[in-house]
Amino acid sequence: MDFAPSSRSAELSERIRAFTAEHIAPVEPEVHRDIARRREHGEDRWTPPPVLADLKVRARAAGLWNLFLPREHAGRYAADFGTDRGEGLSNIDYAPVAEAMGASMLAPLVFNCNAPDTGNMEVLLRYGSEDQRQEWLEPLLTGEIRSAFCMTEPDVASSDATNMAATAVLDGDDVVINGTKWFSTGVGNPECRILVFMGVTDPDADRHSRHTMVLVPMDTPGVRVDRMLTTMGYFDEPLGHGEVSFTDVRVPATNILLGPGRAFEIAQGRLGPGRVHHCMRAIGLAERALELGVRRAMDRTAFGRPLAKLGGNGERIADARIAINRSRLLVLHAAWLLDQGMSRAALSAVSEIKVDVPNMALDVIDLAIQLHGGAGLTDDFPLAAAWVGARSLRLADGPDEVHRGVVARLELGKYR
Amino acid sequence: MDFAPSSRSAELSERIRAFTAEHIAPVEPEVHRDIARRREHGEDRWTPPPVLADLKVRARAAGLWNLFLPREHAGRYAADFGTDRGEGLSNIDYAPVAEAMGASMLAPLVFNCNAPDTGNMEVLLRYGSEDQRQEWLEPLLTGEIRSAFCMTEPDVASSDATNMAATAVLDGDDVVINGTKWFSTGVGNPECRILVFMGVTDPDADRHSRHTMVLVPMDTPGVRVDRMLTTMGYFDEPLGHGEVSFTDVRVPATNILLGPGRAFEIAQGRLGPGRVHHCMRAIGLAERALELGVRRAMDRTAFGRPLAKLGGNGERIADARIAINRSRLLVLHAAWLLDQGMSRAALSAVSEIKVDVPNMALDVIDLAIQLHGGAGLTDDFPLAAAWVGARSLRLADGPDEVHRGVVARLELGKYR
Amino acid sequence: MDFAPSSRSAELSERIRAFTAEHIAPVEPEVHRDIARRREHGEDRWTPPPVLADLKVRARAAGLWNLFLPREHAGRYAADFGTDRGEGLSNIDYAPVAEAMGASMLAPLVFNCNAPDTGNMEVLLRYGSEDQRQEWLEPLLTGEIRSAFCMTEPDVASSDATNMAATAVLDGDDVVINGTKWFSTGVGNPECRILVFMGVTDPDADRHSRHTMVLVPMDTPGVRVDRMLTTMGYFDEPLGHGEVSFTDVRVPATNILLGPGRAFEIAQGRLGPGRVHHCMRAIGLAERALELGVRRAMDRTAFGRPLAKLGGNGERIADARIAINRSRLLVLHAAWLLDQGMSRAALSAVSEIKVDVPNMALDVIDLAIQLHGGAGLTDDFPLAAAWVGARSLRLADGPDEVHRGVVARLELGKYR
Amino acid sequence: MDFAPSSRSAELSERIRAFTAEHIAPVEPEVHRDIARRREHGEDRWTPPPVLADLKVRARAAGLWNLFLPREHAGRYAADFGTDRGEGLSNIDYAPVAEAMGASMLAPLVFNCNAPDTGNMEVLLRYGSEDQRQEWLEPLLTGEIRSAFCMTEPDVASSDATNMAATAVLDGDDVVINGTKWFSTGVGNPECRILVFMGVTDPDADRHSRHTMVLVPMDTPGVRVDRMLTTMGYFDEPLGHGEVSFTDVRVPATNILLGPGRAFEIAQGRLGPGRVHHCMRAIGLAERALELGVRRAMDRTAFGRPLAKLGGNGERIADARIAINRSRLLVLHAAWLLDQGMSRAALSAVSEIKVDVPNMALDVIDLAIQLHGGAGLTDDFPLAAAWVGARSLRLADGPDEVHRGVVARLELGKYR
Repeated sequence: MDFAPSSRSAELSERIRAFTAEHIAPVEPEVHRDIARRREHGEDRWTPPPVLADLKVRARAAGLWNLFLPREHAGRYAADFGTDRGEGLSNIDYAPVAEAMGASMLAPLVFNCNAPDTGNMEVLLRYGSEDQRQEWLEPLLTGEIRSAFCMTEPDVASSDATNMAATAVLDGDDVVINGTKWFSTGVGNPECRILVFMGVTDPDADRHSRHTMVLVPMDTPGVRVDRMLTTMGYFDEPLGHGEVSFTDVRVPATNILLGPGRAFEIAQGRLGPGRVHHCMRAIGLAERALELGVRRAMDRTAFGRPLAKLGGNGERIADARIAINRSRLLVLHAAWLLDQGMSRAALSAVSEIKVDVPNMALDVIDLAIQLHGGAGLTDDFPLAAAWVGARSLRLADGPDEVHRGVVARLELGKYR
Repeated sequence: MDFAPSSRSAELSERIRAFTAEHIAPVEPEVHRDIARRREHGEDRWTPPPVLADLKVRARAAGLWNLFLPREHAGRYAADFGTDRGEGLSNIDYAPVAEAMGASMLAPLVFNCNAPDTGNMEVLLRYGSEDQRQEWLEPLLTGEIRSAFCMTEPDVASSDATNMAATAVLDGDDVVINGTKWFSTGVGNPECRILVFMGVTDPDADRHSRHTMVLVPMDTPGVRVDRMLTTMGYFDEPLGHGEVSFTDVRVPATNILLGPGRAFEIAQGRLGPGRVHHCMRAIGLAERALELGVRRAMDRTAFGRPLAKLGGNGERIADARIAINRSRLLVLHAAWLLDQGMSRAALSAVSEIKVDVPNMALDVIDLAIQLHGGAGLTDDFPLAAAWVGARSLRLADGPDEVHRGVVARLELGKYR
Repeated sequence: MDFAPSSRSAELSERIRAFTAEHIAPVEPEVHRDIARRREHGEDRWTPPPVLADLKVRARAAGLWNLFLPREHAGRYAADFGTDRGEGLSNIDYAPVAEAMGASMLAPLVFNCNAPDTGNMEVLLRYGSEDQRQEWLEPLLTGEIRSAFCMTEPDVASSDATNMAATAVLDGDDVVINGTKWFSTGVGNPECRILVFMGVTDPDADRHSRHTMVLVPMDTPGVRVDRMLTTMGYFDEPLGHGEVSFTDVRVPATNILLGPGRAFEIAQGRLGPGRVHHCMRAIGLAERALELGVRRAMDRTAFGRPLAKLGGNGERIADARIAINRSRLLVLHAAWLLDQGMSRAALSAVSEIKVDVPNMALDVIDLAIQLHGGAGLTDDFPLAAAWVGARSLRLADGPDEVHRGVVARLELGKYR
Repeated sequence: MDFAPSSRSAELSERIRAFTAEHIAPVEPEVHRDIARRREHGEDRWTPPPVLADLKVRARAAGLWNLFLPREHAGRYAADFGTDRGEGLSNIDYAPVAEAMGASMLAPLVFNCNAPDTGNMEVLLRYGSEDQRQEWLEPLLTGEIRSAFCMTEPDVASSDATNMAATAVLDGDDVVINGTKWFSTGVGNPECRILVFMGVTDPDADRHSRHTMVLVPMDTPGVRVDRMLTTMGYFDEPLGHGEVSFTDVRVPATNILLGPGRAFEIAQGRLGPGRVHHCMRAIGLAERALELGVRRAMDRTAFGRPLAKLGGNGERIADARIAINRSRLLVLHAAWLLDQGMSRAALSAVSEIKVDVPNMALDVIDLAIQLHGGAGLTDDFPLAAAWVGARSLRLADGPDEVHRGVVARLELGKYR
């Protein structure tokens, strides 16, 4: 057993941290203030701020680009699209890199490693045809365009993915798409050009063979972003979460991914690493929150002592340290299991971290908010937004309850 | 011991509920949507919507007006300004009325029972001079104007109120005010005309005799709302939480409340009943959240069963029911103790509910959000805003930690 | 609403406390030490110590006897068997009395108010024939004999009472009983003379009409205490929890309570008030634990300060105070609802306290143990035994999970 | 990063498991029943049962002996006293072995790897003179004799080790010892021959240089075991926890370990690995509890379904799985840090696991108890004893609060 990261992983994490400290952190507050100002004045705040484009150029030049590309599937894309050595990283090597990015809300965008684009790119890598990859994967890898994933529906309990009721009906050489999706992250951004849509093709097939995934260009007639949603008051510009209606949307059948009725197969492959990424970023977020909380607790004085020395604050800080450390190890272990192949152990591990990490992060961020007093709720600090991000993670990609169900099923299965 | 509410209390609560169901609930979503739309388009959303004025007229006509007026201090104001029988309610009688109002975000405004105006009116009732009451209390009681409370400061740990560093210096017949306050709730609203300001008058006096409370009209030169703050993305229009700077603001010394150096005396009297009100409204909010959660859990189906029958959802609903019931009783008991006089038991009880209730409400609302899936985070339901409101309560009027400290001190004191 | 106890309730609680302080507390440690010594040396420790008999005489003489007798059912027994005024107490009046008794492990025995005798006496009062009452209730009321309740079985999940598989078969004028019961509290005590047994009479009847309750004298041939059980190392002498086998035990059919197949009807009536008693005693236990914990935390010094001032100890003490206070109110409210009749609200309330109180008590006692350091785990303090008692309560009379299920079902029922 | 154990570690863990399954598990219940029977009848139950001696012979023959011997300090003792390859294990290699042993209460004794003997042997290895090692370490390594550690005192808050008030006064060539210690684990066992005693030598020295550790043979005049203590009703035979008085106990100054006033130096070195061992055994205990709980939940049926499928049981089982996995990783990481040298990171890590693991184990064991119903509290299953063991760990070797204090101090230290 060896807990030291590989030298490549350690070096990349360190470079991400250094780049973030030097280039992103100084501009981040202004980006958020600018978006807030635009929102306040009813101006467009969905077009990404120009500084973001500059940072992306710089990040790509530094070789800190597309680091999410998976070792096993990256292929020539790693060489062609900027990954530092021309090869992808294993999950265990990428995990600390993702943690480093997670400490900043902007960083994942800057390094072209943000959800849902990473997941969509991975789907195209693993399941896309050569044409699909050329048309959509390549501009996603260069960062020219952005994408969204259209799965969750407002009218059904989407925690059970077989409930999805939107349709993708084969009609000659076309697929005709109808229905309403929401929580389609990224559709606010005008650079978002391609949607990965999931809908029912064959309602009479087996529950897990009914649905199909289809690539739907945003500008296809019948696609409409009906509204942008808030999560606890935040629009999360410049990506945003949209409600998207599809009315008799017609695309060629060649836009189908993998094949009709194979959506669940894709979802399965897409979600393991994606959840590790989400969770490692959340670890990074929790670390940053704890640092902010501790600094505040040392700087502010009440009743004659720094907050850090008052009542239970020290013990709570200790509990936060313990919680972060053990959750990080759980994610790293899950990443390592994924690298060994998608065993039952890996399946459980991915669901375990999906339950554990967001709840841990929420507790730590909440403590940091409390240590900041009212300020912690404002946008003077990134804590309120961080909390909302972590809260969303308890629902996105499967709510806690579904993942606990997976873990329980596998646990009981050991004794059958 | 008798847990049945008095007939007056029961009847008023019932009428508040009926009024809310008939008049407020139908328009509430549109009010929120309208504010969101205005925010989206950069239009004014601080002027209260016209429907609110209509509802206030109607509420006053129905005798559901200023019900917060305390039995002991209401005096002739209860008769003159609309309370149903011309006399104030005891805390124990008002508590269920406040719970009924708490189920709706608008209701407290409609019934002229919203914070911080109620607290400010109470201060004027109890400590205001005849002139002060005539000038400010009366238009507050009619709902013509609104007020704010300027205590918390951005630059100090305000959980220790003796830290407040803004100044209120006597200069001849005037008081000269300087400093910056924030989390001044209500200053967004253009109807807000009067501020209750707290600042240091005599820095050499005993810690609890340094500060003075002063009435400062909003239009006094030197008063400026520098910005409106968000709490987790929400501006809480049409009241809002502002950062207010005071630069050489000069008002006559007759604007001082009670006397120089007597701010803590006032704060003490102001906060007991105010905390009971906050807590009872939070109970109402939790009840509403639970109802929404249970209804959703019964309506939505996943994996072949309604959510309410899946995994631990039923048990969590049971825990929420238990938590609400016991916290309500704790608040009612605190209200009853206050009615018996501000004993040490009442002092502890008020701090106990201030810790207990917001945390309970957060858990219940969080459960309701989780049962709603992603929808729970949007503004399609009042849950996200409710959560943020309850979260703020863990900081407003003293953070949990300070109140736990009070309870602990009184507990240890029993054995000294 | 009025939170003041009635004068009778207040006076009786006060007298129980005074009696306990004067007569029981001084001898209690020696009673426990003596039992421990006897256990250590393999001597009989099931015969109640002589001092207990003396205390019972004194308690009866003081009119502090059989106070559990319920107002509605006590009838002439209240007058004949020593209750202070010759009439039973309402649940709300008895509740504070039960709390006062709960602070001492011996007190319930001294005042003839201990489980399971109180429940059995209540069953006889409400459902016993005149003969049954004369033969068994009267000597129970005088304290001459003791009883046990034989329901839980080792071979089935007894949380579902319809699982009980022991049999009570009608055979002419007799009932023939077979099966094994355990957690029969009280059978260690040689004064235990009568068992209330529950078994299947008609396996083909409706699930809730299969079982019968039968009075089985301990000395009936075929009844055997196979062993005494420990709960976490404690035998709980002198009552104890036994495993009892019944082999072709034959008693006259007149020993049946209420009638064949009516066991569930009796269980329903028996358990409401019994659970309130259990819970109020647990409140008393938690109060005593908190007092011990606070005193210890004030007396002991580490790192230069009393424990009470170190780290989170003060906050935890505050949380314990809050938790006890709100749980007490929940139990009092349940008692009050029971007094109003066994409504759905009362049904939920009884299950709510059954979940809430033991868990609360465990947390408080655990804190007190922690504040005592290792000493808290020994029998130098009553905390370890108190913890085990409270832990047992999470299983006795229905585990938490079953009661949460009841609360959830009633909650969902509101919206059907 | 690599989460696979070394082949030696994996093989040894596997062999420990196999040995335990084959040789220990079949006799363990009878050992416990025999002790219970002896306790019940007042017979000696402190002499270890003969089967234990047989098992030790067999374990030593199998090379599963003294595996705790640390790689860095084992020296020739590893070769001479039975460790499989004649060399000690690193902490990371030993950790899974300790987990394997922790699943059984007897196993650590069988493999000569039980506390406090391991800690005492380590002290002798690292700090003992050649004579001290020959006289005491060698018979401890062969298992001929046993030892105890006399530190905690009944009269002071021992969580602050500088509070210890017993004395070890130099008098010519002797040390004279006075005072009372308790929670001296192992002194019940007649094979216990040597005590490691800690007392004040120079009350005027710096707080951490006052105390001395001295080897005190059990048969030295003036040493008396005053009584054996229970922890929640358990005596933990055959080791037991004793209260030991020292009255003018005189031993030669050559019995001093390391030197006068150097007790804290020794304690520091002793406790790191010992805490890892404790924690890994607790992980093993939690795993066993979870297995028992899951099996019971699958075997027992209530309300028509196996318990595992009822309400929140499945989710709780999932939470237990998550909790065990993440805590195990935290301990393994701490072990690895120790192997890298006792850095600040290792210092924090050891305190982190000391807080985290016992609390985790308590939750898991409590769940298993609850799933067993009343049976879980009896000695028919090892759960009640396991719970008490884990509960003791929250106090032994420093209570949670002290370790949280260490973690907090180190965390704040990062930002100074």
